[in-house]
Amino acid sequence: MGEFELIEKLKKTLPDPSKRVLVGIGDDTLVARTPKERLLWTVDCLVENIHFDFNYYTPQEIGWKALAVNLSDIAAMGGTSLYALVSLAIPKRVSKKRVVEIYEGIRACAQWAGVDVVGGNVSRSLEDFFIDITVVGEANKPLLRSGAGVGEVVAITGFPGLSAAGFLALQKWGKKARKRYPLSTYQHVHPQPRLEWAKKLKGLGVTSLIDISDGLSSELHHVTGGSKVGFEIEERLLPVADEVKQIAQATNQNPLDLACHGGEQYELLMTFPLSRFSKISSSAEKDGVPLTRIGHTVSLSQGVKIRTLKGKLRPLKSKGWTHF
Amino acid sequence: MGEFELIEKLKKTLPDPSKRVLVGIGDDTLVARTPKERLLWTVDCLVENIHFDFNYYTPQEIGWKALAVNLSDIAAMGGTSLYALVSLAIPKRVSKKRVVEIYEGIRACAQWAGVDVVGGNVSRSLEDFFIDITVVGEANKPLLRSGAGVGEVVAITGFPGLSAAGFLALQKWGKKARKRYPLSTYQHVHPQPRLEWAKKLKGLGVTSLIDISDGLSSELHHVTGGSKVGFEIEERLLPVADEVKQIAQATNQNPLDLACHGGEQYELLMTFPLSRFSKISSSAEKDGVPLTRIGHTVSLSQGVKIRTLKGKLRPLKSKGWTHF
Repeated sequence: MGEFELIEKLKKTLPDPSKRVLVGIGDDTLVARTPKERLLWTVDCLVENIHFDFNYYTPQEIGWKALAVNLSDIAAMGGTSLYALVSLAIPKRVSKKRVVEIYEGIRACAQWAGVDVVGGNVSRSLEDFFIDITVVGEANKPLLRSGAGVGEVVAITGFPGLSAAGFLALQKWGKKARKRYPLSTYQHVHPQPRLEWAKKLKGLGVTSLIDISDGLSSELHHVTGGSKVGFEIEERLLPVADEVKQIAQATNQNPLDLACHGGEQYELLMTFPLSRFSKISSSAEKDGVPLTRIGHTVSLSQGVKIRTLKGKLRPLKSKGWTHF
Repeated sequence: MGEFELIEKLKKTLPDPSKRVLVGIGDDTLVARTPKERLLWTVDCLVENIHFDFNYYTPQEIGWKALAVNLSDIAAMGGTSLYALVSLAIPKRVSKKRVVEIYEGIRACAQWAGVDVVGGNVSRSLEDFFIDITVVGEANKPLLRSGAGVGEVVAITGFPGLSAAGFLALQKWGKKARKRYPLSTYQHVHPQPRLEWAKKLKGLGVTSLIDISDGLSSELHHVTGGSKVGFEIEERLLPVADEVKQIAQATNQNPLDLACHGGEQYELLMTFPLSRFSKISSSAEKDGVPLTRIGHTVSLSQGVKIRTLKGKLRPLKSKGWTHF
């Protein structure tokens, strides 16, 4: 199968684009209706055996995740994702059938999110399999990581450490882990960022928003740098899921470490004044989003700290996932 | 050096973005002023030892080319490039110093083109080195490959086959080829798409426009598919440069094959009514763009043909560069 034949096959995997796409796959570039609001734009890359492994993931799940991690970035600005381009570099050992299956996962995620996959690029590589997806979105007033003030509530969606625990379980038990630890493994291979709810947060008075893809501690330090506030997180408030505790025990890990530092979690970390708390939690409840207050912001000079169960205040270092 | 340290270093390599960039590197996504016209968007990937080789290219040239190939796609729509995102996947053997040098080339090309490099992604890979760049641009009325009519002039900029000849020379003689065949090797490693002139073509009455990155024959077939016309190209009109002839002779290639099928040439192929010819050529001359009429469009049923020097009409098959 030639390059153009593969592109034709991938094109057929996708549904017809929506009306805002004026020229899709087949010309030099995409031509689309311009976003009405601010342009948001992100790119993220998955590399086989660095970010995913065909032993743990179905090809469709790899495609889903490759798109979802980008949608999470747009959601973390309070924005709406519109269009996606997919750039693949494929070694010979990966069959065309598998590439089509990955595209099926991209399509499923795109349909879930209302995003048009409008083209991309297909290239050859020698060894590594590389899936680079870039997403354009829009937001009227983007929610940055720089808006937090001192004395605000810090809250997260979901259960930090769940994805990292799922990854540990998949590494230890392979596919068997999926039956034993369904929540954590599913969260790892099939992340579902809080796309719809994230759009409401600006209107609800959220002052800073970020996703915790690099791990909670790392992202707290990012907000510290952007907003010029410190954080006091309370261990007793952290929602550590049962599966995280079970997997931590079975793999000799500390569940608190998984919750504080585990990455690849596409949940939201936010700050807002206490006065907004009840409105924001009602909205989360109504939308089925688990939201937990985990601490409060303090002055920048106090840094990022965690209050342990015994009441001691300890520095919470940035130990998030890094490839280098 | 950690991931965030490398990102800091790359960020410092770049100039401050222009005012249209509201939030650049450092938040979840770029936030920028929305293009005023139609949104154009493309992505293209260079893989080491597939698309480039550190033996022939300086790191800066690799960076330049990785961005330039995307700018060429936007130019081929008659558009203006605005923003670029860079996604790198880097194996351990490639030093951070080299990555910074590649970024210097990206910066140089971005400054040449007036484009803001607004962020991207840095990831680890196991073996292959990937440079994926995505560019957003705008165009009021994009020039598609689908507008050609029967009986129009077919013209190209530049000298087809020059880049492919340069590649052959670099393969055969390594860096020495750069002194011996400066035009072709430079065109291969340092392409300069016709960004400014391309923007004028819609107003001058050009009906279809495409870049010949996949090779002239391949792109003619692309326009055939889009515009529903055939082509008659005349061998006697094809501007085959002396270096193409010399390198073809030294490497036992047919210079006509290089001109018709050689890829990685970021020149423009266009169609327009004969009545526009004098205006378009004056404009090209004024802007220092070598423009050559190479044939005319015919009905779709006649296909893509070349009239040889002896006057015979032969099919011109699509033999452009393909990775598969």
